[in-house]
Amino acid sequence: MTLTADAQTGADTTAPGNQAGAPASARPTATGEALRKALDGPFHDVKQRWRTEVTAADFVRDPEWDIPTAREWALDKLVGLAGRGLAIAGFPEAQGGRGNQAESVAHFEMLAMGDLSLTIKSGVQHGLWGGAVTNLGNPWHHETWLPDTISGAATGCFAMTELGHGSDVQSLETTITWIPEDGEYEVHSPTPTASKAYIGNAATHGKWAAVFGQLIVDGENQGVHVIIVRIRTEDLSPVPGVTCGDQGHKGGLLGVDNGTITFDRVRVPRTHLLDRFGGVGEDGVYHSAIESKNARFFTMLGTLVRGRICVGGGAASATRKALSIATRYALKRTQFRLPGLGEEILLLDYQTHQRKLLPNIARAYAYGFAQNELALQLQRVTEAQGSDPVAARELETRAAGMKALLTRWANDTIQVAREACGGAGYLSENGITLLRQDADVFATFEGDNTVLLQLVAKALLLDYKKTWGDMDMRGTAQATARMIGGTFLERTTARSVIERILAGSKSKDVNARAWHIEMFEDREKHIVEGLAKRMRAAAKAEDVFAATNACQQHMLAAAKAHTDRVVLEAFIEGIDECEDPYITSILSKVCDLYALATIEENRGWYMEHERFDGSRSKAVTEAVDALLVELRPKALELVEGLGVEEGWLDAAILA
Amino acid sequence: MTLTADAQTGADTTAPGNQAGAPASARPTATGEALRKALDGPFHDVKQRWRTEVTAADFVRDPEWDIPTAREWALDKLVGLAGRGLAIAGFPEAQGGRGNQAESVAHFEMLAMGDLSLTIKSGVQHGLWGGAVTNLGNPWHHETWLPDTISGAATGCFAMTELGHGSDVQSLETTITWIPEDGEYEVHSPTPTASKAYIGNAATHGKWAAVFGQLIVDGENQGVHVIIVRIRTEDLSPVPGVTCGDQGHKGGLLGVDNGTITFDRVRVPRTHLLDRFGGVGEDGVYHSAIESKNARFFTMLGTLVRGRICVGGGAASATRKALSIATRYALKRTQFRLPGLGEEILLLDYQTHQRKLLPNIARAYAYGFAQNELALQLQRVTEAQGSDPVAARELETRAAGMKALLTRWANDTIQVAREACGGAGYLSENGITLLRQDADVFATFEGDNTVLLQLVAKALLLDYKKTWGDMDMRGTAQATARMIGGTFLERTTARSVIERILAGSKSKDVNARAWHIEMFEDREKHIVEGLAKRMRAAAKAEDVFAATNACQQHMLAAAKAHTDRVVLEAFIEGIDECEDPYITSILSKVCDLYALATIEENRGWYMEHERFDGSRSKAVTEAVDALLVELRPKALELVEGLGVEEGWLDAAILA
Repeated sequence: MTLTADAQTGADTTAPGNQAGAPASARPTATGEALRKALDGPFHDVKQRWRTEVTAADFVRDPEWDIPTAREWALDKLVGLAGRGLAIAGFPEAQGGRGNQAESVAHFEMLAMGDLSLTIKSGVQHGLWGGAVTNLGNPWHHETWLPDTISGAATGCFAMTELGHGSDVQSLETTITWIPEDGEYEVHSPTPTASKAYIGNAATHGKWAAVFGQLIVDGENQGVHVIIVRIRTEDLSPVPGVTCGDQGHKGGLLGVDNGTITFDRVRVPRTHLLDRFGGVGEDGVYHSAIESKNARFFTMLGTLVRGRICVGGGAASATRKALSIATRYALKRTQFRLPGLGEEILLLDYQTHQRKLLPNIARAYAYGFAQNELALQLQRVTEAQGSDPVAARELETRAAGMKALLTRWANDTIQVAREACGGAGYLSENGITLLRQDADVFATFEGDNTVLLQLVAKALLLDYKKTWGDMDMRGTAQATARMIGGTFLERTTARSVIERILAGSKSKDVNARAWHIEMFEDREKHIVEGLAKRMRAAAKAEDVFAATNACQQHMLAAAKAHTDRVVLEAFIEGIDECEDPYITSILSKVCDLYALATIEENRGWYMEHERFDGSRSKAVTEAVDALLVELRPKALELVEGLGVEEGWLDAAILA
Repeated sequence: MTLTADAQTGADTTAPGNQAGAPASARPTATGEALRKALDGPFHDVKQRWRTEVTAADFVRDPEWDIPTAREWALDKLVGLAGRGLAIAGFPEAQGGRGNQAESVAHFEMLAMGDLSLTIKSGVQHGLWGGAVTNLGNPWHHETWLPDTISGAATGCFAMTELGHGSDVQSLETTITWIPEDGEYEVHSPTPTASKAYIGNAATHGKWAAVFGQLIVDGENQGVHVIIVRIRTEDLSPVPGVTCGDQGHKGGLLGVDNGTITFDRVRVPRTHLLDRFGGVGEDGVYHSAIESKNARFFTMLGTLVRGRICVGGGAASATRKALSIATRYALKRTQFRLPGLGEEILLLDYQTHQRKLLPNIARAYAYGFAQNELALQLQRVTEAQGSDPVAARELETRAAGMKALLTRWANDTIQVAREACGGAGYLSENGITLLRQDADVFATFEGDNTVLLQLVAKALLLDYKKTWGDMDMRGTAQATARMIGGTFLERTTARSVIERILAGSKSKDVNARAWHIEMFEDREKHIVEGLAKRMRAAAKAEDVFAATNACQQHMLAAAKAHTDRVVLEAFIEGIDECEDPYITSILSKVCDLYALATIEENRGWYMEHERFDGSRSKAVTEAVDALLVELRPKALELVEGLGVEEGWLDAAILA
């Protein structure tokens, strides 16, 4: 298939290769607009609202600001946007939100096209603190805290991570002890490592904290619960028993006031426990509708999955911004001359430069469609209110895999964009280094990527039937051993279109979508099956830790293969839903590039497992190179389609 | 081979896997000391001097400082170290240096274990500005500028790059025009893009600049030459005709005052032209011993190759520091419990964590040995004073390849180290984020990595017989077409030991060194041969640009394969020179890990080209995994061997 004429303008906008793109204009081209609409998908209206109503002055930060300035700016802008009804869609309608989780993810993504410090400040205030009260609290909690949380008056912390335990939440040391004689709880940090750490809003702005700790009732540990504790007065003075520390300068996100919180036997009213899933009643007795402590814990955590989805989406937005800057620069910057001292050559006309940017633009589309689907899935699971635990676990699995893949890609790709702009890319005035510094920690917070990928692999082995947390490595290995039959390859919502494609074509052409699907599916299936076999053997080993430990890299590979397949299916579905044939033809090429670049990246695996031979592998690389040449003339339109307003780019080199 | 007992202590220091390393102590273990000595090689005395005489207070920067503070600190510390005879070994003995280029590289590497802003400040002042005067000037220039350059009183810039041209130095726009009637030169920036840009010392501290420009004599362009121009008075006031700009905030290196310089018909005395390779004499006529303008230009640039070697070495030092922090942290930090709620597990006992750190530690050793060899080669070429142009071109080729590989590895690996420390890694107090920010631009300055790798590939195609700059892509393609016979695989100085190994063993075991050598050599040879064939065909193509452009990725692959082979040979030679059998046994394992991890990374290529099949590929991965288990107990000693003093680590998490 070749690119068809532009259905909307009637003109063939396919430009020859060696030609500068149009200068950055206030409005994108018609093709760019149409690509934007397709990629925005169900969130087009929300995202367009940002593009038309929000200016750089509302949410783009000066990279030179010091910590105090950046922190005050972030709180101020958050309050300003919330006052305009932006980035608060996830709150209940009763308190002024829209009760829409999917929309709240879209808002987060748009915020991340401005500034990541502000994004994370909002994520802490509205997403994590507000989300904990919303999802773990009862109507009284909502009425008491949410209106001021939305406005930014009731600043709050999500106090989960401790110095000693980040990834291993079940081992938190903070205690929430029921004191029956007084009818209240006592919150305490029993050791130095029990201090809450890396907590946003803790260093300067927070008045409240949702504190995670072991709930002890009558000497029995009921597992981790969450309680609202005041940590500063309304005028931000200290309160007795609570010590807040400032963790100061970081590698980025200087607008977020991360700090420590330590509790010295702080008394808290009974009603402050967020007791949707369990707590001590007026009768002084612990009640929970979920009997298993493990199930209770993971159900609670499960309601907080949105944070992970937002982090992946925010990282992707920052990457889109970096790709927009680097690609637009490559369309105006020349270096070296054509043979025979001809005219100077545009950077984007070099194969090496195309290799840096175009496959990543394709990946940005792929991840964008997958992120849309993930947000919709979040909405469905939220609306099901626990009635579909398999869907909930599937959502958690995808959220974990997507978060890990998107944040890894973000870190790598923003760096590529920086280098693609040469020395100019290193100047803060060109916007990329700030993105890189801020996005860095996205690989760690809301779950270390390596740990998340292992969670995905566990879920794949257990077929979503078990709660993740039910088992450690030995438990997983044993449970795997009980698996009956082959492994599991559930279809995404793209089920019907995938089946239609597979039924319609048996082509093994490298550009055949059916072949791409087959390659992605096959890789996932084989890796997961192999892992299951190894885990079964490991369960019987003398040293279970050593045996399961040796499977860790295999687990990462399984998780990546699974998530890659989910992403491809979402891309295919996104194209299927596009009604403009010209845009469909472009997106198909972009999907080819995503699929083939991913297959190329994994060609070692395919050849190791005799899925294809060396000549096929070379053909894949040639097909990628051919797609670069074909898509090069559409580079400007493609980055316009990524949806970052020109006015937000804030890069002096594009002026 | 298994690790033998420690020859020095008599004890078997091989500890079982799941055991914390010794706490960070002031002195390394005996094994660590011995590894340090081996890796330092010929530079052990120089490097030990830094370790015993230089403290963190001398050269470790506070990451929180703002730009003015960081800049003043850098100049102050540079002056202090120079006063102690540190980091000035490259200057002529007559002016107080040691006339030793190799040693000056070693100094640079040690400086980079403290702070990269200070390192680059020194690189600008002593390496680039001082190096230009030393290598391009005559004895009068030396006597006039070098003593004050060494002390830091005569602050200078290396004004090569312009806004419009960075990589393409021959297209610089600045003019140096001979005015016969006045017997002096006029330096001028004819267009806005002719402004010098990204120039260290330009924004605040520089009094002088070595300005690169087109030398015009009697209307004839003699090509790029360098002239000394005053840019500020001794009290740092402006001088007429010279405008200096401040490029302000950057992604890192805040202690380096990068700026722009623009010249408005500035008159400069005739004697200020650095005329070692050409200039206008007292007779008012242009003289040069090198007739070809191209050859003259590349001879001049060639004398400045040290900067590129230093940048690679400095990036490697920063990476060693990051690996030291992350590995020591992984030896004290636990997370999650052993199966059945046993004790908590050390991070470094996880396979995924070992995969992050240990192969990179192995790479640090490999690059360290190769860097030593490169510095010695620089010394030999400098001493030859132009009498061995093939050796000079070989040096430039290796310097380009090493710079590109080491700085890419540095950026990737410092990020891995940051993530391996989790949220703590993101706090500036733990030292890693500053390294990451500062090292970023090493991928760009002293030559964009993508451009450098293409230079390497060109040199390989032309067999070092031609000057690089003699030809553009078409010229290269045509010259390649004239190549007679097969391609070229010169041996490094490791020639004799490599031949001994190849003669002694025909083993195809994955752990056999002979097999590693064969795999590295074969990959280089095949890729370069294939490239030569494609370039020959491209020379005859209708669209030569399109045809050679399509070979660019292939050129990068050739350059990497070549440099990998050079590195492996240097590692093998380094081991061969080690006299302690215990240390030799450890280094052999480390070399196995480097070699196998590199083969594993390129397994797609090997299978594509039927160098080995899938089962062999899996065996390589298994061998890497086995080496991780084997080397894990030596992790502390291995990072000690990387030679970064504990006192310089400046990481709160290790306290």
